[in-house]
Amino acid sequence: MTIQQNEFTKWYIETIQNADLMDYTPVRGCIAFKPDGYEIWEHIQAEMDYHFKETGHRNAYFPMLIPESFFQKEKDHIEGFSPELPWVTEAAGEQLEERLALRPTSETMIGYLYSNWIKSYRDLPLLLNQWANVFRWEKKTLPFIRTSEFLWQEGHTAHGDEEEARHETLQMLDIYKKVVENLLAIPVFDGTKTESERFAGAIDTFSIEAMMKDGKAVQAGTSHYLGTKFAEAFNIKYLNKNNQHDYVHTTSWGTSTRLIGSVIMVHGDERGLVLPPKIAPTQVVLIPVGPFKKHPEILEKLDDLYKVLKAKGIRVKLDDSDLTPGFKFNKWEQKGASLRVEFGPRDFQNNQVVIKIRDEEEKITVALDRFMDVIEEELKVMQKRLLEKARQFRDANSHVTIDSLQQLQDHITQSKANKNIPGWILAGWCGSNICEQKVKDETKFTSRNIPFNPPIKKSNCIYCGNEAKHTVWFARAY
Amino acid sequence: MTIQQNEFTKWYIETIQNADLMDYTPVRGCIAFKPDGYEIWEHIQAEMDYHFKETGHRNAYFPMLIPESFFQKEKDHIEGFSPELPWVTEAAGEQLEERLALRPTSETMIGYLYSNWIKSYRDLPLLLNQWANVFRWEKKTLPFIRTSEFLWQEGHTAHGDEEEARHETLQMLDIYKKVVENLLAIPVFDGTKTESERFAGAIDTFSIEAMMKDGKAVQAGTSHYLGTKFAEAFNIKYLNKNNQHDYVHTTSWGTSTRLIGSVIMVHGDERGLVLPPKIAPTQVVLIPVGPFKKHPEILEKLDDLYKVLKAKGIRVKLDDSDLTPGFKFNKWEQKGASLRVEFGPRDFQNNQVVIKIRDEEEKITVALDRFMDVIEEELKVMQKRLLEKARQFRDANSHVTIDSLQQLQDHITQSKANKNIPGWILAGWCGSNICEQKVKDETKFTSRNIPFNPPIKKSNCIYCGNEAKHTVWFARAY
Repeated sequence: MTIQQNEFTKWYIETIQNADLMDYTPVRGCIAFKPDGYEIWEHIQAEMDYHFKETGHRNAYFPMLIPESFFQKEKDHIEGFSPELPWVTEAAGEQLEERLALRPTSETMIGYLYSNWIKSYRDLPLLLNQWANVFRWEKKTLPFIRTSEFLWQEGHTAHGDEEEARHETLQMLDIYKKVVENLLAIPVFDGTKTESERFAGAIDTFSIEAMMKDGKAVQAGTSHYLGTKFAEAFNIKYLNKNNQHDYVHTTSWGTSTRLIGSVIMVHGDERGLVLPPKIAPTQVVLIPVGPFKKHPEILEKLDDLYKVLKAKGIRVKLDDSDLTPGFKFNKWEQKGASLRVEFGPRDFQNNQVVIKIRDEEEKITVALDRFMDVIEEELKVMQKRLLEKARQFRDANSHVTIDSLQQLQDHITQSKANKNIPGWILAGWCGSNICEQKVKDETKFTSRNIPFNPPIKKSNCIYCGNEAKHTVWFARAY
Repeated sequence: MTIQQNEFTKWYIETIQNADLMDYTPVRGCIAFKPDGYEIWEHIQAEMDYHFKETGHRNAYFPMLIPESFFQKEKDHIEGFSPELPWVTEAAGEQLEERLALRPTSETMIGYLYSNWIKSYRDLPLLLNQWANVFRWEKKTLPFIRTSEFLWQEGHTAHGDEEEARHETLQMLDIYKKVVENLLAIPVFDGTKTESERFAGAIDTFSIEAMMKDGKAVQAGTSHYLGTKFAEAFNIKYLNKNNQHDYVHTTSWGTSTRLIGSVIMVHGDERGLVLPPKIAPTQVVLIPVGPFKKHPEILEKLDDLYKVLKAKGIRVKLDDSDLTPGFKFNKWEQKGASLRVEFGPRDFQNNQVVIKIRDEEEKITVALDRFMDVIEEELKVMQKRLLEKARQFRDANSHVTIDSLQQLQDHITQSKANKNIPGWILAGWCGSNICEQKVKDETKFTSRNIPFNPPIKKSNCIYCGNEAKHTVWFARAY
């Protein structure tokens, strides 16, 4: 597995192209999601949506176009997003009186509407989510990870008080953590963002952070406590039980198609895509081997197995194309099929199949009467194993003994010399923006988050050496 | 039920507002889908998506922004859509070199990509679908029915020959028909669009047409055989089995959130929304009645019933708010809850509940030990009854004996005088665009489609009296 940064990006792009997950388009930074890429998103959607609804949220849909004046109402928000906005200025042959932005996120439009929808405490909490496309005109793009248009969900809730809103913010972060770990087999650190990394307009931003195989971090989900900032900007007030008008406290939280990129960068290997079985478009591929064309019973039997697997709800393909077995093995490894079942004349005679598990080296031979049990078991075990492998990788590359800028610089230099990845470091931080900025300027390491449960507590700031207010994960990030 | 046109529109807008399905926004013609409105769409999506996948289609996602030059490649297409396009002209502080349209439909972007994706007969058929937002900057808008931004699915397939592509086109129309009838309880006529009503760029457009309660028609779904027109425009060629390059034959097909508007206009009544139980956000609402506050056992029992219904997968609400029963009855009728269960102290004593079925006049009293069976049965029966009622209404207002323009004009005048709706008429047509246009100019009736299975065959053109080539449904349309 290549780990050097420039090679890793090359590996990543080759991997997603060989796996046929996406294609570039002539529109800058906008990709097409091909079926296998989009299906990963569909599995993520289904699982997230289930948890959102279980916790009382409902889906809604808001206009994609947002009047320019809406952005002006919350000053941090416009400052944060205006450099990245595409604008509609003409429609149906006429110049518009006011420019309309393609939404980068919907706090403003939703703030405007919530101010009409929320009148009294009876209307609270208001717990909505939206599945939508959003736009951020990025200079540097990378498929799935950073694109001009991407797909996401954005939750927007309003509450009567801070306590309830903060509880919601953390509840949703926790759902993200569970889905990302259990479905995508990606271990994450949950924590609080520093001020400089906060969402534009938030009081507090919380995130889950995942380590890719090149040691860089991906922010895999964020949840924001917005206080009364948007309520004040859009005048979202409610009549409380004491018959007084109060501002609501709002939250927002989101995950996006960058999760697709993350799962590839966490599990992929030199042969291509490796996917947790729960999201793999192909969980089992059946491939005839040997001189199977002289033995029609081979394809008949494979067809039986196909039907049995299909009936069990397993995503199975039977590759009976004219290509050679070797070509097929390679193709389905590139595409990240979880289990490959090989079956030829000798296997037929011996009442067995040969199974190759995508992330294991050895093949296993399985008696046909145990076929179904083994398939189901191996899919489950693989799901767990991938999480475990990712956790081991992450922990091995999370460094907790680096306590000064010099040590960090030495660590980076040494890693490079040894062709290792620098990974993440856990360090103390005094809380000053200047120290955080200095670390970034001199090492490209940025603060990822202040973990809720750091493995250890740090006592001194990595930059100035003064007393640490926080213990922070620092890493290079996508 | 009011039926006069202006009153009907007023009724429609009041109904969707009272039912809390949507809200207007400051962006022209763009609405916000509130949870109960969006949930109807989610049920439609789930059912459609199931049938698409059952027939071998997969979902993908394509960029929303389409370069202007793409539209120029198919001349009918640009002519049809250009008057309605919104344009992005600036992004991230810079003027774009080429304007980007907000997609009104994706044939052009997909045509461009398919020309890269399709190389040989092994790549065919290519069967993709997209769930997305689209834009058509309409002058006159009506919530759900005609909005500047709407949600839809668009299928796009490529095939080796005309026969297979035409089969696909009709297969998808048939899926639309079944879903609209079985899920939305809306009977439709399937047939072929006349040339003047064809999709911009299609060889043939097929549609399903539904009658609203004001007698107007809604095109509830369309499926297009595009021939090789887009293949030629975008150079989508494949190597056939004889090693020759051929153009593919493409299809596209779509249904949209206008189905939400249709289901309301077909089933609603003077008390508000009436929804087929399969898509109703609230299938059962439980309401305590009488002096229930003195009897805590009432709410306890309702809570038990709530849990039992919930466990059965029924969408149930328990309305134990402080409002009066009368207010609640009205509210849940407006929102189209399928069944209302009333339960008070007397019912407790008698081991019974009282059930009001949304579209029936009389209440029924049901012994508690039959509660679950009756609920499940009544939901099923209501679903069927709504389709039957809609079919009766449509057939009663489908006129098949009008054979000249004069008769049609008399019919319209008479309907108006009698405060009846004019409904639809089945008439002969010679095939000339001029005759079709004349009927439209003089009566506002437009051709809806040439039904596959007309109740009778017409022999003379309604306008010129010459021999009829086709038997056509004419109606006013949304």
